[in-house]
Amino acid sequence: MQSALTSLCAALVFTAAAAQAEDPLPSWNEGAAKKSIVDFVERVYEVGSPDFVPPAERIAVFDNDGTLWAEQPLYFQFLFAIDRIKALAPEHPEWKDKEPFAALLRGDHAAALAGGEQALVEIMMASHAGMTTDEFQAIVDGWLATAVHPKTGRPYTEMVYQPMLELLDYLRANGFKTFIVSGGGIEFMRAFAEQVYGIPPEQVIGSSGKQTFEIRDGRPVLVKLPEVSFVDDKTGKPIAIQAHIGRRPIAAFGNSDGDLQMLQWTAAGAGPRFCLYVHHTDAEREWAYDRASSIGRLDQGLDEAVAKGWTVVSVKDDWKRVFPFDR
Amino acid sequence: MQSALTSLCAALVFTAAAAQAEDPLPSWNEGAAKKSIVDFVERVYEVGSPDFVPPAERIAVFDNDGTLWAEQPLYFQFLFAIDRIKALAPEHPEWKDKEPFAALLRGDHAAALAGGEQALVEIMMASHAGMTTDEFQAIVDGWLATAVHPKTGRPYTEMVYQPMLELLDYLRANGFKTFIVSGGGIEFMRAFAEQVYGIPPEQVIGSSGKQTFEIRDGRPVLVKLPEVSFVDDKTGKPIAIQAHIGRRPIAAFGNSDGDLQMLQWTAAGAGPRFCLYVHHTDAEREWAYDRASSIGRLDQGLDEAVAKGWTVVSVKDDWKRVFPFDR
Repeated sequence: MQSALTSLCAALVFTAAAAQAEDPLPSWNEGAAKKSIVDFVERVYEVGSPDFVPPAERIAVFDNDGTLWAEQPLYFQFLFAIDRIKALAPEHPEWKDKEPFAALLRGDHAAALAGGEQALVEIMMASHAGMTTDEFQAIVDGWLATAVHPKTGRPYTEMVYQPMLELLDYLRANGFKTFIVSGGGIEFMRAFAEQVYGIPPEQVIGSSGKQTFEIRDGRPVLVKLPEVSFVDDKTGKPIAIQAHIGRRPIAAFGNSDGDLQMLQWTAAGAGPRFCLYVHHTDAEREWAYDRASSIGRLDQGLDEAVAKGWTVVSVKDDWKRVFPFDR
Repeated sequence: MQSALTSLCAALVFTAAAAQAEDPLPSWNEGAAKKSIVDFVERVYEVGSPDFVPPAERIAVFDNDGTLWAEQPLYFQFLFAIDRIKALAPEHPEWKDKEPFAALLRGDHAAALAGGEQALVEIMMASHAGMTTDEFQAIVDGWLATAVHPKTGRPYTEMVYQPMLELLDYLRANGFKTFIVSGGGIEFMRAFAEQVYGIPPEQVIGSSGKQTFEIRDGRPVLVKLPEVSFVDDKTGKPIAIQAHIGRRPIAAFGNSDGDLQMLQWTAAGAGPRFCLYVHHTDAEREWAYDRASSIGRLDQGLDEAVAKGWTVVSVKDDWKRVFPFDR
C-alpha cells in the first residue's frame, strides 16, 4: 500500500515538474549557459530519453568558494580564522612576537601570509583546533550570526550567488542529489550549508583536520587536533568524491583551477555529463578575476573548458542578479 | 504546484505508514527486543510526540560484519582476499617463500595470521591495491557473483540477516536515512550494499586505503595504493561518522566491542536515542560466540549494554528466521 502510494506520488510529482510553466532559473539571463543547463537536466530527467539517468545516479557536485558564495577579498573562512586569532590573543601573549600571528594581530594580512602554506596551516590550526566538534560548531554559528563582509557590510551567509541557489533547487526538483566538494573546512561549511543551500551535512565534503575520540566526565567527545588530515583541492577532489560518494557525479560546478580535476573526473564517465565553470567577470556587481588571481585562479581550467566545450558562465553577462540582496 | 503536490504526497505516505496494519518485522519474534524497536520508531516518527525527531535528523548507523551479514568462520572480505591472493599467485612466484603469502597459498590461514596486524595489512594491501577503483569494483563484482560460503554453499550476498533487512526497510519507511559504518573496506562493501541492503554508496562508510589521481591515456583514473588510510573500528567509528555524516546518529546497531564507541557516541546525544547489540547465541542456525571470540568479540560492549539498558538481541530467541534462505 505504502509503496504503491509512493510510486503514484512520484508519478504525480514527475508530471507536475514536466508541466511546470514558470522559469526555475529567473536570475539567469537567456543565453547559451542557461540553455545548456536546462537542456542537460531535461535530457537526463525524461523517462524514455536516450540519455535518461536513474535518480540514484543523478549526483551533482559543487565547489563552494567562488562557486556558491563569494571569495574576495579573502576566503571567508580565513577571515573567520583572523577574527578567531584576535579573540584568542589575550590567552596567547607569545603571539605578539611570533609570526604569522604578530602580523595578523597588526592587521597586516599580506605579511602574515608571506610565510606561505606553513603560515596558513599555523593560522588555521590555531583557530580551528583544540576544542570539541560541538564547541567549534557553536563558535562558527556565533561568528556567522555577527560578522559582516568588509565591502558589503552583509552577513557572509548573504554573500551567496542567487543564480546558484536557483540552480541547486532546480537540480533537486529534478531528482538530483547535490553535494559540496570544496577546499573549505568541512565542519566550517556544515555550519551553514543546510540552512543556506539546502545541503545536509552528510552531503558536504571539504578539507579536514584530524580528530580524536575521548571520554570526558563520562561523556564521549570528539576533539579537533592541530593536524591536517585531508586537503580537498585539485587531485584531492576526485579522491574525496570517491571516498565520500563512491559514485562518479554526472554534473560538476566550479570556478577555479582547484576544481579542474573534479570536472575532469566527472566528464570522463560514460553517458551524459555536464561541467560548468563560473567565470568572475563583473568588477561592478562582484569582482573580476581569473588567470592572475591568487584567490580562485582560473587559468588552465578556462583553457580546458573552452577546448572541451564545457559551459563557462560569465557573471557579467549570464547573471541577471548576483546576490540575493541585489535588486 | 509541484511543492504543494509533494507535501500532499508526503501526507498521504505518512497516513499510509501510520495505518499500515501488516507487521513490518515478520522475522522478529514478539518480545522485548522487537517491542523496543517499534516503540522507539513510533516515538520519533509521530508528529506531536514529545520525542518527535525531524526527518533530516533520523540518522541510523549499522555495523556490517556480524550485524547485517555473517562473519564466520572468517570475515568474508578476508576470504575474498585469500581468493585474490591465489588468483594473483602465478604473477608472484616470490610468494611461495614469503610469509604470510606462503602459508595462505598452502591453505594454512592460522599460520598466515600468526604475523598479527602486519600480516593482515600485507594480505589486504596485496589483494586490494595496485589497480584502479573501476578495476577493483569489477573484481569484487565477479567474486560476489561466483564465490560461495564454505559452510552453507550460498553466495555471500545471501548470508545476510533477514530480520535486519526488515529493520532497514522499516526504518527507511519511517523517514530514517540508513548508513553502514563498518571496519570492512569501504569499496568492498559498496559493491553490494545498494543491491542487497538498499544503501547507496554515499551512505557506506568503512576502512580505506590511500588513492592517487592520475591521467592514463588521456583519461583520469583513481589508483588504489598499498597504504592504509583509515581504520573504521572502535574510536575510528565516531570519527568516521563525524567525517562522513557530520551529524550524530539517533540510532546505532552493532554486534561487537568494535562498535562500542559508535553506540556510546550515539547514546550521548540529546533527545531520544536507540542502541542495539546483536548477540550471536545460535550455534544451530548460525554461530554462537561472544566474549572469547577473535572475530566479532562482544565482551565490554555486552556489559555496557546491560548497564545502560540498550537492546540486546539474542539471535536464538529473538529471530524467527536468520537468513533469507531459512524456512
